[in-house]
Amino acid sequence: MRYTNAKEYNVAIVGATGSTGSKTMEILAERKFPVANIIPIASNRFSGREVSFKNSSIKVRTFENADFSDVDLTFFCAGNAVSRKYAGQVADSGSVIIDKSSYFRLDSKVPLIVPEVNAKALKKGAPLGIISTPNCVAVPLTIVLKALSEVSAIKRVVVSTYQSVSGAGRRGIDELYNQSKTIMSAGTPTPEVFPKQIAYNVIPSIGDITALGTCDEEEKVASEIRKILRSDVKIAVTCVRVPTFIGHCMSLACEFAKPVSEHDAFDAFDNFEGIVTLDRREGNGVFATPIDVQGEDGVFVSRVRKDYSTKNGLMLWIACDNLRKGAALNSVQIAEELIAEDPQLKMFRKK
Amino acid sequence: MRYTNAKEYNVAIVGATGSTGSKTMEILAERKFPVANIIPIASNRFSGREVSFKNSSIKVRTFENADFSDVDLTFFCAGNAVSRKYAGQVADSGSVIIDKSSYFRLDSKVPLIVPEVNAKALKKGAPLGIISTPNCVAVPLTIVLKALSEVSAIKRVVVSTYQSVSGAGRRGIDELYNQSKTIMSAGTPTPEVFPKQIAYNVIPSIGDITALGTCDEEEKVASEIRKILRSDVKIAVTCVRVPTFIGHCMSLACEFAKPVSEHDAFDAFDNFEGIVTLDRREGNGVFATPIDVQGEDGVFVSRVRKDYSTKNGLMLWIACDNLRKGAALNSVQIAEELIAEDPQLKMFRKK
Repeated sequence: MRYTNAKEYNVAIVGATGSTGSKTMEILAERKFPVANIIPIASNRFSGREVSFKNSSIKVRTFENADFSDVDLTFFCAGNAVSRKYAGQVADSGSVIIDKSSYFRLDSKVPLIVPEVNAKALKKGAPLGIISTPNCVAVPLTIVLKALSEVSAIKRVVVSTYQSVSGAGRRGIDELYNQSKTIMSAGTPTPEVFPKQIAYNVIPSIGDITALGTCDEEEKVASEIRKILRSDVKIAVTCVRVPTFIGHCMSLACEFAKPVSEHDAFDAFDNFEGIVTLDRREGNGVFATPIDVQGEDGVFVSRVRKDYSTKNGLMLWIACDNLRKGAALNSVQIAEELIAEDPQLKMFRKK
Repeated sequence: MRYTNAKEYNVAIVGATGSTGSKTMEILAERKFPVANIIPIASNRFSGREVSFKNSSIKVRTFENADFSDVDLTFFCAGNAVSRKYAGQVADSGSVIIDKSSYFRLDSKVPLIVPEVNAKALKKGAPLGIISTPNCVAVPLTIVLKALSEVSAIKRVVVSTYQSVSGAGRRGIDELYNQSKTIMSAGTPTPEVFPKQIAYNVIPSIGDITALGTCDEEEKVASEIRKILRSDVKIAVTCVRVPTFIGHCMSLACEFAKPVSEHDAFDAFDNFEGIVTLDRREGNGVFATPIDVQGEDGVFVSRVRKDYSTKNGLMLWIACDNLRKGAALNSVQIAEELIAEDPQLKMFRKK
């Protein structure tokens, strides 16, 4: 992105010591977002901790020690409880919030944005001063579905996910690492972050299970996708945690109103910003795995093939760095959209 | 199983040093299959190696040093190349073969058996002297689909698998273990058995990719299920290798001709031999993961829920020990069916 206005912004990062928070600072620097000052915020237990931004180390502050009246943009990267408690007062002080938690995502007054898909939804501003960034599965999924919907209307999608532990933050990463060490030295790990052992195991549920039998993550994916795509696309999701560190994957079986050939799909993907395709015709092994997409910005699509089990079916495999496009990168891209739309950010401040 | 005839059988195990071969001997002992003598066979490179059966150690033999004329039953647990090369001559010498490889599975003269599902198919004997046991995904899948088909005809199933490395035998287990060790000491592993790194990664293809874009394993699962169920049930499969040691899992989205409630499904499962259900209503965390099913005989079904994305839909999660029910246990159960049907095994010998 080329920044065409000369203005620089004061940017606060809530949850600056966490995996999404630190990744957000890394991507702000990497994309040369016009930052005047960075204000890292963390809870009391990180008191005294320093985080790095560009070439300097900056001490984290607590909410109590931070003044938001000069802050233009605040990235909330600290989960629902923190967003619920603090987002309102930060918005009141005039800072525009980009929220990574799920707390505001389905609020009709809060735009839920994947820039490649629905940047237009920002034209109406942000009445609460809050813009939400979607769940890390919903981001790549809406990009792929939006690209395909330009070939034909989508009738139904069946999705199964293969989600890395970093989706549960730094504690998730630590748990997989520590459990692996324990098992390699013939010990028995005790689950803390995840409901069962995650090392050398897979867990077919993310979040609590609802009365309907779906789990929280499955509910989020389905409802967020409908909001972002502004459609009632039918979606059946199974969310599964797998023992990978970074990179969320998913298998898709899509049903369309009209026939969609593999060629149509590749064309649509190649013409859509943010998608990287791997063509199966280039030989065996040409598919994207979690380790292939670590550190990458793109949503990787591979294993595209006709689904002969239904009338107009197509199957494919998505892989995406959940910490980048699934979270921090998407947030920074939203910030880029905001300053491009209104360099003063006036239209996005709380009314 | 209670064995009601007094006859004991000479049993050969081809591939006795491998994971399926050794598991087959373990299960023969565990289920008190009436074994007179056990004859473990392995390739030259295992020359001198001993394997254990019950409380004794037995030296493995090569094909060249084995005489099959007195062998009643031979379990082939050594892959396609060995079955292709040796099964014909072993059958010629009068031994009945239970073959774990995929080589004969789709041959119309070879019964492909999951005892709980289609034991009846053995009534016609085995013209080639060979009975095949299905792919380790197909075994649990046919059991669950057969149970559900007793509630309503199945129109279509979308399946995504989470398959452990032991599906690729002992070398697969070693590769995951060694790669984990390498990564934990900050090294970079080199894939040998799997096409990409499997530790802390998932690989969305098993076997070669065909001209249609499906992979070998996906083709096997779909075609074997149609043969076992004697139906042209529509099936869309994505096969994925995950970094677990033992236990294959799969997510299912089933579409039926008639509505099938969760209650109907639980009833059907509870009335079907070989299925263990976990009821989501008992609280969170009540689902079966790979480590939960290691060493278990049952096919575990959990996360049963309505699929509101289609007319008569139901979703669920299957977990099964791929070395037991997915392979060795199913083979031994086939042997039990054979001796129950014809203690002299005459009707299963090559004509």
